Amino acid sequence: MEYSAAPLQRLIEQFQKMPGIGAKTAQRMALFVLGEPKEEARDFALAITEAVDKLHRCSVCCNLTDGEVCPICKSSLRNRKTVCVVENVESLMAMEKTNEFKGTYHVLHGVISPLDEVGPDDITVKELLSRITADEVNEVIMATGSSVEGELTAMYISKLLKPLGVRVTRLAYGLPVGSDLQYADSVTLARALQGRLEL
Amino acid sequence: MEYSAAPLQRLIEQFQKMPGIGAKTAQRMALFVLGEPKEEARDFALAITEAVDKLHRCSVCCNLTDGEVCPICKSSLRNRKTVCVVENVESLMAMEKTNEFKGTYHVLHGVISPLDEVGPDDITVKELLSRITADEVNEVIMATGSSVEGELTAMYISKLLKPLGVRVTRLAYGLPVGSDLQYADSVTLARALQGRLEL
Repeated sequence: MEYSAAPLQRLIEQFQKMPGIGAKTAQRMALFVLGEPKEEARDFALAITEAVDKLHRCSVCCNLTDGEVCPICKSSLRNRKTVCVVENVESLMAMEKTNEFKGTYHVLHGVISPLDEVGPDDITVKELLSRITADEVNEVIMATGSSVEGELTAMYISKLLKPLGVRVTRLAYGLPVGSDLQYADSVTLARALQGRLEL
Repeated sequence: MEYSAAPLQRLIEQFQKMPGIGAKTAQRMALFVLGEPKEEARDFALAITEAVDKLHRCSVCCNLTDGEVCPICKSSLRNRKTVCVVENVESLMAMEKTNEFKGTYHVLHGVISPLDEVGPDDITVKELLSRITADEVNEVIMATGSSVEGELTAMYISKLLKPLGVRVTRLAYGLPVGSDLQYADSVTLARALQGRLEL
């Protein structure tokens, strides 16, 4: 596009690489940054470099952290004997927002996916296994997604853990709270029926 | 949010400042940047600082540029006697994408809005007036938006220009191409009727 200067074009392209951001939104974001006071735009750039330079995986749970271990693993209020296994940091954040879970996490940073040539060694399964004995973990909650790969990963890890005498559980499937039965898809409804509870 | 490291939190906040970006999207974008190779994330930060440092307003039309004048004003293929007045750089880009306009632009960087205390001196009206005689402009096309402020700005500028003997025109209002009459709002339809053309 001949009509816009190269630095503007490069900035638009950077925004456009993001998931879910198309050409128009990227343009809007780039021009928003340029419309801000220069100091704020520089803070933005600094936030990126700082995050990239300082953040790394927690040596215990593989969550992103700027310290040796992440705030959750460091906290004395969290139960280290219960570990919730999640696919990624987004899932961890979603779980934390519930304020229900007081155990610790383990972030896999992916799922086993033979089609994409992702095997158990490409995700943090080894790190999970080494925690089990070290922390005397007695329950592992599998909170991977309900995709084929998520289920496969949950099954694979549970098979590794059961011989170690660890209780392995899975998040319940069922109707989303607040939704109507008539709008539920049939697979979800079937799982809700299978997982019915005593009243 | 205690569970995520400060540099990550800061990066999420930076994304969340953008127009139309909520908490979840900001989080997704921040984690996307961190998931990229470090070099790419640094390129992103560099693109921001470079754009902020290098871009400024074109000395002729106030478009953003890294040179003395913008690529459009520099081009020998563009007619400097026809000037299209737009509110912002986004509008200029939208106009350029049509490939229909071969004149030059003038970017107001805002509209006159008494409620927001934006007067003619806060936008680039003065720069526009100084071009009229210097470039012997014979037509100014007002392409400000159809908001009250956009219309007010168009009226204000046309009143300044007419005594100078410049032809001032306004983009046509009417039915969007490809849409059905039944779906048009009544204001648009009324304007399409007023602006009807001979066949």
